[in-house]
Amino acid sequence: MNPAAAKVREAAEDARAAAHALALLPGETRHGALQAVAAALEGWIPAILEANAADLADPEGLSGLGPAGVQRLGLDAGKVAGMAAGVRAVAQLPDPLGRVRLRRRLDTGLELTQVTCPLGVLGVVFESRPDALVQISALALKSGNAALLKGGREATRSNRALMAAIQEGLAAAGLPGASLQLLEGRESVQALLGLDGLVDLVIPRGSKALVRAIQEGTRIPVLGHADGICHVFLDAGAEASMAEAIVLDAKTQYPAACNALETLLVHAGCAPALLPPLASRLQAAGVELRGCERSRALVPGMKPATEADWDTEHGELILGVRVVDSLTEAIAHIHAHGSGHTEAIVTEDSAAAERFLREVDAAGVYHNASTRFADGYRYGFGAEVGISTGKLHARGPVGLEGLVTTKYLLRGQGHRVGDYTGPGARPFLHEDLPC
Amino acid sequence: MNPAAAKVREAAEDARAAAHALALLPGETRHGALQAVAAALEGWIPAILEANAADLADPEGLSGLGPAGVQRLGLDAGKVAGMAAGVRAVAQLPDPLGRVRLRRRLDTGLELTQVTCPLGVLGVVFESRPDALVQISALALKSGNAALLKGGREATRSNRALMAAIQEGLAAAGLPGASLQLLEGRESVQALLGLDGLVDLVIPRGSKALVRAIQEGTRIPVLGHADGICHVFLDAGAEASMAEAIVLDAKTQYPAACNALETLLVHAGCAPALLPPLASRLQAAGVELRGCERSRALVPGMKPATEADWDTEHGELILGVRVVDSLTEAIAHIHAHGSGHTEAIVTEDSAAAERFLREVDAAGVYHNASTRFADGYRYGFGAEVGISTGKLHARGPVGLEGLVTTKYLLRGQGHRVGDYTGPGARPFLHEDLPC
Repeated sequence: MNPAAAKVREAAEDARAAAHALALLPGETRHGALQAVAAALEGWIPAILEANAADLADPEGLSGLGPAGVQRLGLDAGKVAGMAAGVRAVAQLPDPLGRVRLRRRLDTGLELTQVTCPLGVLGVVFESRPDALVQISALALKSGNAALLKGGREATRSNRALMAAIQEGLAAAGLPGASLQLLEGRESVQALLGLDGLVDLVIPRGSKALVRAIQEGTRIPVLGHADGICHVFLDAGAEASMAEAIVLDAKTQYPAACNALETLLVHAGCAPALLPPLASRLQAAGVELRGCERSRALVPGMKPATEADWDTEHGELILGVRVVDSLTEAIAHIHAHGSGHTEAIVTEDSAAAERFLREVDAAGVYHNASTRFADGYRYGFGAEVGISTGKLHARGPVGLEGLVTTKYLLRGQGHRVGDYTGPGARPFLHEDLPC
Repeated sequence: MNPAAAKVREAAEDARAAAHALALLPGETRHGALQAVAAALEGWIPAILEANAADLADPEGLSGLGPAGVQRLGLDAGKVAGMAAGVRAVAQLPDPLGRVRLRRRLDTGLELTQVTCPLGVLGVVFESRPDALVQISALALKSGNAALLKGGREATRSNRALMAAIQEGLAAAGLPGASLQLLEGRESVQALLGLDGLVDLVIPRGSKALVRAIQEGTRIPVLGHADGICHVFLDAGAEASMAEAIVLDAKTQYPAACNALETLLVHAGCAPALLPPLASRLQAAGVELRGCERSRALVPGMKPATEADWDTEHGELILGVRVVDSLTEAIAHIHAHGSGHTEAIVTEDSAAAERFLREVDAAGVYHNASTRFADGYRYGFGAEVGISTGKLHARGPVGLEGLVTTKYLLRGQGHRVGDYTGPGARPFLHEDLPC
């Protein structure tokens, strides 16, 4: 094992020991630790801003980072205070641990309980935004998990300063420092991904390329999504002003987000009336439209869409437009080209809406609302570790619920399986009890 | 692509289309289909037994199968009737689909609902026992999933007859035949494991070697467990007769099961009194004991245990025995050598019991009950697709709950994210509603 890998393994072993300790802490202790971390972040504001300024002044660190990346990296006192407020918001959430999901009397004196408990050790790999470090640390702590966090090279100093503040908070609350640890260096990611058995879940936060590389490079379960190819379908029964408001919001409010609109589907019944004025509004907002033959016949000057456009997350002001003949055709397009992230229908026809909600297979299916609502904060989860387009464990925006598992506790009085087997077997009661 | 792989891919594409149809069927239709399958199984009893007899008379198919394997393969009219009864029991379970897990008013007129829905297409690879085919088919149908099922070579004819009966039931209920399909041939497993994007979950049912090979050979999520290294800890406060009853049940009632006992830990405070008579009972039941130094000092003639014994699932009448000085040492041994399956403490000291239940990290943690209770039927799940020692998605015995995912439905009235952002942002209500 090379020295970098050995160091990461040692960090993971320390994190594992810390996780066993965290799992046993009462909710008030974890709550208090989050309050201490928030206070420490506020106390560290000058040092954090100094470190951030040094990151922003380092041409080597910034190389390859676009202007949007540099903007995401920059901090000010308000942003750090916002991080502290975010930590306090997570502290206020209900305790996700020790919740009873099932209570069942199997037989007299034999009671089964399913309770929530932490996953153990999280491996987090994030890019650019230093606030991801604080947000995920807070969620990990609240859910009793330890975490190893690897940030981007461009934010090295900022992340160190933020972690120093977090460590001060942990120490003040008497929690093990190994609960939350920063990893550095490219090689540490490789080492982290090899630690199945020590790390329970890997969470990538960053570009599609990062997520894909991690999914393909580890046997540890990965929570996240690679693509966000979201659709809005304007049904024959769509109301024009609502359609316009939702499409503009979904496409232009933050085009780089994974829940932003990529392809607009328009029912042939309303396309002649709706599409031309909507196209003008979108073009006026700087959106490049790429249409199918039929939409181009309605909107002169629209570029032709290629087959590849339907399968691409542009993440910028480019929108595919396609006219379809029916709700069935719209759903078929979504299942063929969507990424199972978030899909919306705009219509006043409630039967069509309910059919769309029932039939579309995606993490989020919306009626008369913008796809941009797919977000842990907007769903009321306080914060999110990411959005899952996988179907196992967690789907959609993932908050504290995605960071816990359960165990089954069985309390008996000497009960043996032999008594419930074969001729004269005792029957089970299987009586559900209030949780 | 070779012809076998092309055939499996085509089967999976058909299954995917069938899954979309199944997902939309009302619960009564799925219930009726299960009743039809049960009736068809009863009608097919003579043909099934004939096919099974041919399997049992085929020396090529049986080669490499031990006597236990041959016994598991054998069917009689009672066993097939039992399968039909099992299908009816699954039919009677509450519908796992369309359940509302969360309902939240995000703002006036904007309501979020989280509902359960099927995973899609299951890939099932099972060995020997033909009843696994019927049990998993029933669970898949009940949960609205399609399934591709690959059985063992030795059961080829039996599985074909069972699947013919199932197909008759599907046809009688008007369900697509592609919902449940049998795959044959070694190459088809390889092909199945490569179908990420078409197959949502792989469920191996069989030997450790099978489970490991599948876990290492696919990027599709795998539900299952490789090892069952279960412990019973006799605490200082253990009552002698209860300790004896539980240990004998856990070790001898069905030693090949994954939830059978592999290592007995005994507190030094009760070992001198408890261990010698317990060892005699175990030896009388044919159990070979392999002990640490201290247990061998108490039970003359006991073989020495090697380090490897603590990490081995013997699956037969061999039991490791170790004397420990404390509850803490017992838990440390379990975390170091256990497989996170099922762990039990026997004690009259309720504080020790509660500490064990809280601190031990495993899918099942028991007080005064045999580890053999870890089973979907005994937990009241009706049947099980397997037992998961993974922490993601499902942990412990997995019934219908493990075969569903959720989607978030959002119903609005033209709601835009832009109105909830920036200066003058509308606040969210985040008001939970009754489910």
